[in-house]
Amino acid sequence: MAATPRLDHDALDDDTLDALDAWCRAADYLSVGQLYLLENPLLLRPLAPEHVKARLLGHFGTVPGLNLVYAHANRAIRERDLRALYIAGPGHGGPAMVAGAWLDGTYSERYPEITQDADGMARLFRQFSFPGGIPSHAAPETPGSIHEGGELGYSLSHAYGAAFDNPDLTVFCVIGDGEAETGPLATAWHGNKFLNPVTDGTVLPILHLNGWKIANPTVLARIPDDELLSLLRGYGHEPLLVDVEKGDDPRVAHRRFAAALDHALDRIAEIRRAASEGDDARPVWPMIVLRSPKGWRGPDTVDGDPVEGTWRAHQVPVDDVRENADHRDVLERWMRSYRPDELFDADGRPVDTLRALVPDGDRRLSATPDANGGRREDLALPAVGSFAVPVETPGAEDAGAMATLGDWLAEVIRANPTTFRLFGPDETASNRLAPAVYAATDKQWAADRSPLDEHLARAGRVMEVLSEHQCQGWLEGYLLTGRHGVFTSYEAFVHIVDSMFNQHAKWLESAADVDWRAPISSFTYLLSSHVWQQDHNGFTHQDPGFLDVVLDKSADIVRTYLPFDANTLLVTMAHCLRGTDRINVVVAGKQPAPQWLDLETASAHCARGLGALDWAGSGGDRAPDVVLAAAGDVPTVEAIAAAQLLRDHAPEVAVRVVNVVDLGRLSTPEQHPHGLPDDDFDALFPPGTPVVFAFHGYPWTIHRLTYRRRAHDDLHVHGYRERGTTTTPFDMLMMNDLDRYALAVDALERMPQGHDRYSALIADLRERRRAALAHTRAHGTDITDVTGWRFRPSDAGATPRPSEK
Amino acid sequence: MAATPRLDHDALDDDTLDALDAWCRAADYLSVGQLYLLENPLLLRPLAPEHVKARLLGHFGTVPGLNLVYAHANRAIRERDLRALYIAGPGHGGPAMVAGAWLDGTYSERYPEITQDADGMARLFRQFSFPGGIPSHAAPETPGSIHEGGELGYSLSHAYGAAFDNPDLTVFCVIGDGEAETGPLATAWHGNKFLNPVTDGTVLPILHLNGWKIANPTVLARIPDDELLSLLRGYGHEPLLVDVEKGDDPRVAHRRFAAALDHALDRIAEIRRAASEGDDARPVWPMIVLRSPKGWRGPDTVDGDPVEGTWRAHQVPVDDVRENADHRDVLERWMRSYRPDELFDADGRPVDTLRALVPDGDRRLSATPDANGGRREDLALPAVGSFAVPVETPGAEDAGAMATLGDWLAEVIRANPTTFRLFGPDETASNRLAPAVYAATDKQWAADRSPLDEHLARAGRVMEVLSEHQCQGWLEGYLLTGRHGVFTSYEAFVHIVDSMFNQHAKWLESAADVDWRAPISSFTYLLSSHVWQQDHNGFTHQDPGFLDVVLDKSADIVRTYLPFDANTLLVTMAHCLRGTDRINVVVAGKQPAPQWLDLETASAHCARGLGALDWAGSGGDRAPDVVLAAAGDVPTVEAIAAAQLLRDHAPEVAVRVVNVVDLGRLSTPEQHPHGLPDDDFDALFPPGTPVVFAFHGYPWTIHRLTYRRRAHDDLHVHGYRERGTTTTPFDMLMMNDLDRYALAVDALERMPQGHDRYSALIADLRERRRAALAHTRAHGTDITDVTGWRFRPSDAGATPRPSEK
Repeated sequence: MAATPRLDHDALDDDTLDALDAWCRAADYLSVGQLYLLENPLLLRPLAPEHVKARLLGHFGTVPGLNLVYAHANRAIRERDLRALYIAGPGHGGPAMVAGAWLDGTYSERYPEITQDADGMARLFRQFSFPGGIPSHAAPETPGSIHEGGELGYSLSHAYGAAFDNPDLTVFCVIGDGEAETGPLATAWHGNKFLNPVTDGTVLPILHLNGWKIANPTVLARIPDDELLSLLRGYGHEPLLVDVEKGDDPRVAHRRFAAALDHALDRIAEIRRAASEGDDARPVWPMIVLRSPKGWRGPDTVDGDPVEGTWRAHQVPVDDVRENADHRDVLERWMRSYRPDELFDADGRPVDTLRALVPDGDRRLSATPDANGGRREDLALPAVGSFAVPVETPGAEDAGAMATLGDWLAEVIRANPTTFRLFGPDETASNRLAPAVYAATDKQWAADRSPLDEHLARAGRVMEVLSEHQCQGWLEGYLLTGRHGVFTSYEAFVHIVDSMFNQHAKWLESAADVDWRAPISSFTYLLSSHVWQQDHNGFTHQDPGFLDVVLDKSADIVRTYLPFDANTLLVTMAHCLRGTDRINVVVAGKQPAPQWLDLETASAHCARGLGALDWAGSGGDRAPDVVLAAAGDVPTVEAIAAAQLLRDHAPEVAVRVVNVVDLGRLSTPEQHPHGLPDDDFDALFPPGTPVVFAFHGYPWTIHRLTYRRRAHDDLHVHGYRERGTTTTPFDMLMMNDLDRYALAVDALERMPQGHDRYSALIADLRERRRAALAHTRAHGTDITDVTGWRFRPSDAGATPRPSEK
Repeated sequence: MAATPRLDHDALDDDTLDALDAWCRAADYLSVGQLYLLENPLLLRPLAPEHVKARLLGHFGTVPGLNLVYAHANRAIRERDLRALYIAGPGHGGPAMVAGAWLDGTYSERYPEITQDADGMARLFRQFSFPGGIPSHAAPETPGSIHEGGELGYSLSHAYGAAFDNPDLTVFCVIGDGEAETGPLATAWHGNKFLNPVTDGTVLPILHLNGWKIANPTVLARIPDDELLSLLRGYGHEPLLVDVEKGDDPRVAHRRFAAALDHALDRIAEIRRAASEGDDARPVWPMIVLRSPKGWRGPDTVDGDPVEGTWRAHQVPVDDVRENADHRDVLERWMRSYRPDELFDADGRPVDTLRALVPDGDRRLSATPDANGGRREDLALPAVGSFAVPVETPGAEDAGAMATLGDWLAEVIRANPTTFRLFGPDETASNRLAPAVYAATDKQWAADRSPLDEHLARAGRVMEVLSEHQCQGWLEGYLLTGRHGVFTSYEAFVHIVDSMFNQHAKWLESAADVDWRAPISSFTYLLSSHVWQQDHNGFTHQDPGFLDVVLDKSADIVRTYLPFDANTLLVTMAHCLRGTDRINVVVAGKQPAPQWLDLETASAHCARGLGALDWAGSGGDRAPDVVLAAAGDVPTVEAIAAAQLLRDHAPEVAVRVVNVVDLGRLSTPEQHPHGLPDDDFDALFPPGTPVVFAFHGYPWTIHRLTYRRRAHDDLHVHGYRERGTTTTPFDMLMMNDLDRYALAVDALERMPQGHDRYSALIADLRERRRAALAHTRAHGTDITDVTGWRFRPSDAGATPRPSEK
């Protein structure tokens, strides 16, 4: 296979070449300064030990390439009046993005103390990777960034997410060749099978092959050109190869890169024009391979070891600079090689050549509202009222919570035709959001189509690809650029994106301290195919542990909701979609199930986040002998059924049933902003009264939330105990002691003299449980008195109203 | 680009064609039977409603393709005397693997009640996805499987892991086109850049393009042939395309697949021969694309809707069979279309044609010891004695725990030259296992090389690729086939493989109940670049939450260790590498740090898992006024330093210092097999005595482990509170209140009248803390009295011996 032609740009005039070269020298200089210097930023004096930081914490290797792309993006933005976003994928690219923002002038606008002069430059240098300063990544503190690049692999997914529904936007996405080895990045290339060239924006991937990771070569830098180009064509791209070699005249490098970029942007314009004129074939989008030496134009050798173009340039190319005069000399010569006196005036201000390359206002990469939440508008949210399930009597009728939600989501889609999307691996239908959602929209799909396809179209609000990483990354990019959406996933497999969740939570937590960032819409997980409805898929599909990962993150950011019927799900989702700067996890079943609360009651219950269900307990004013608590739809049914067993067979026992929708309420107010005050908690769960808690997830999750509560010693949690297989729903409950019989027996045994007084009843309940198990094993179905069970409200249940007691 | 030639196999004789066709019909029939039937397995009677399962839980779509590959693998094994392993990547491929094992005769050997006759067939059918039966995946219960395929994406990583150091092994790895969309699979193709054709075995990827997921087409089935082939060539493969279309004569399909397989195996033999003769260029390994209709040879239409070759064939192609007579008729005609009377004799035994295709004994795919732990031999473990750090006085000398471990691991490598490997993303050197490890071995690398490379070779014991998914999948495959290894990762980024950890834990838990599986070596995570040593990498790199994910899984499987110096790390790792059927998580720092225990003491301490450090506390026989407990290397230093502050400034306070290496000890014996009996726990942590616990991870992790303990109400945990940035190590501790001053203040405040009595001391400690912070912010380094701090043992510390008290 032939390599791509070596492109060269004859038309680039000398002034532009000078400006590009000056920008790169300035940005490289500013990056090195951030890594090394405490003072003497312009090197007006000889470099002395005290000018250098005591701890050198930063990475140079990727920086010159990032700066090159930044400079050329600026040229293209100015020449073509582009609206553009820059995503820097390589790790520790922070210095480059900060340097660019400072040259743009944005940095000083955002942080007035970092002036665009020598003093500001000194502060810029000092704060980098310094206690009380800024991180070494393109973090939330970095103007123009929506992508931190601390954990690698997500740049291209973020780029596609930013481009969806952003038809005027060009996303320059630099992908590190280390990052390119990760799984999420390796599949992110297929984002081009989902992009619509008319209604979406453009992603221009720039694969930065600088050859090395921390201590190893990169895979893609060590395969033959033919193979590399074949791979990229296989991804559906037209690859344009730009080679920069050690010692190359920078002007040659600039001409080559400019030629590739102009070719790519011309081609993109053609593709978009053809598409707008009706060509609906999937385009072959261009992409650029920038092969340049790691730490390009850094020290050639240090102590005789080669550095530029090797893994030794990954972090600080020369260390021990305070102590070692030779090393200090290397650093000084290196920094002076950029000729700072040509780049900054005597006061340290960038010279006009540099200023001339800066785009105007919001068009600056560091100032675009796409990167700071500035384009966000509130979602138009239809009222849930007309979608609610009517509930006259609690538990009298069955309905599917997800199907109900689907009806409402269809309206959300209709009301927000260009700013709201649903993302998921392949499960919108299986989660019962269809058929409603597909009456309102289609799945967007740019690849080949077949007459057998259903609901696939060139444009649509539903994005399905069998990669949780893509779904997560796309939605993050979509939200970070000011839009709205939901990610639906199997509960067990959302663990695939645990680390992406962590990183997004960290981003939101840091971003909360950055005053120039506008709020972005909350990230909402809707986990519908949950552990108690994976009986048919077996043990591999049964895992409620994502809640524990989520609860590890800051209580200021994360919210966990377990609505227990259709109306509480509706109310919860409406709340989540209105929110900003949070991560919501909503767990809700998709199977038809009893409906408990009418809309008004559901709204009140969700507002409180937890409460007693009077109609399920013994009622009256008596203090409870036992509390049956539950969080989650299936556990709540079991707790209600267990209470009914007690009401029927031990009517003298005062039982209270409590449902928890918002897990945050279980924590104390000091631990979580939603934490219930201790007195209210004690009123609901009186200390000294046994509480049998039926929980959707792992039992200790409830313990970790409640360990500070007075009632904690009386709390006995049933939950998923990591027992499962392919079986029936009720068998799953029995395997984990979460079934109504186990709950009722536990409640009876925990009452004073419970075991003695109720031994006959306990024996009877155990026998019914054994019969249920025997029936299941014999027939492969659940016993009729379980599956055919109907709730009967207590006398206290005249109205289906929960109360806080 | 030209497509691959349509291969056809003229040489295949009619008997072989007949046998292949019969096998596929038999295996398809047996698979359908598993999905649907309770009895009447041979259809000797007309199909009646009561013959059919009440709940239909299974997947047919992928099954015919898996059976086709199985049949042809059998032919190749017999003709070429291959040793082979079959990895079925597509989800829910269980029925095919079970059918193959039953036809092989292995199923009846493993499960004698599942005889190879009509009765056994009925039991085989009934147990599938049935309460008390077997899962729907190629689970641990499935003979011949090392790969369950419940969560998708890991087949090819498992295949490479199985092939490393297995030069005689051919791994047939079927990759579903749904699975191919996942990130982990998308990068797993690059495994061929790490395979040595002389010392490793062979992986033959078979990409099974059946076109559909649950409700969507697959990406790779909807790109043009040229693009697909370009992609696969870009992955470094020679792709061989086998097309099977709806209605094709199965014999034509068999001839085509046989031609591709024979071509591939011939080519593999050539590659291996050339390599053994010294050709060390990276080979272009063949791979096969099998494009066949989803649910091939299943029902063409049901109720007028097309099924074969569509997403409707994904699960059960025809449902509602008990109730709907038309559907039952579809099923019966479908099953009879396989002509079971030609395949099984009157007693239900497979006919001779089928038996003739079964390889001998251990060569059967379902019987290979590669898949049941049968090849495992114990690791040769050098004694740790000569590698231990001498410790005369606790805390007197610094050493690097990881460097010490590296010396020993180098010996482990030398002693086990073909059965032990280290896996990691790019950090063996950065984790300080180098230089020692690289004196013993190299990093294995099959791609291009450069003179600048260090420690890269065509064969070596260290596997580094920037994909935690690959590292995890490779090591799983390596262990599951009977070898040994360690996965080193950044603590924060090991969350990337949370879900793979979950799945492996589930595998081990289920496998423990399968008596014919031999033990496999434990999976050991070594998390060295941990949260308290990521000050230079910033907030994105700071996350100790993997422990919480791990602790969610069964206490029978998971072990969590936090050795706190070099010798405890050595002892812990030796213990982990000796173990089987567990998952160990070991967290240990890489920076030089004080050394506390000599080897003998370390061994005793690790055997107990926790204990008082007498030399760090006040000593004597007095009951403690306060316990300073710690788990983790950095927190233990702070707890010891806090105790020293109390000893120095409040000598009347009896302080006990307790270190916990094995978190399992904190649980009760009912919760964890390592759980410390309550009386012993109370002796160490006397109820009523305040315990200030300095923990490596999130504070609530300790609460969830100890909530049942009597002392729990007195336990106050300091840990990572999700505060971090790029800063100094001591600033990180201060940000999270885990520093010595915060611990000492908390201890003083928690003693009766502590705040009043010690208000001057508390003020002084707070002032020292403020000074430390001010110093850090001013100089970018930690204050000298912290970094230069040296431990001084108490009078009780005549010998560095911990005790249980």
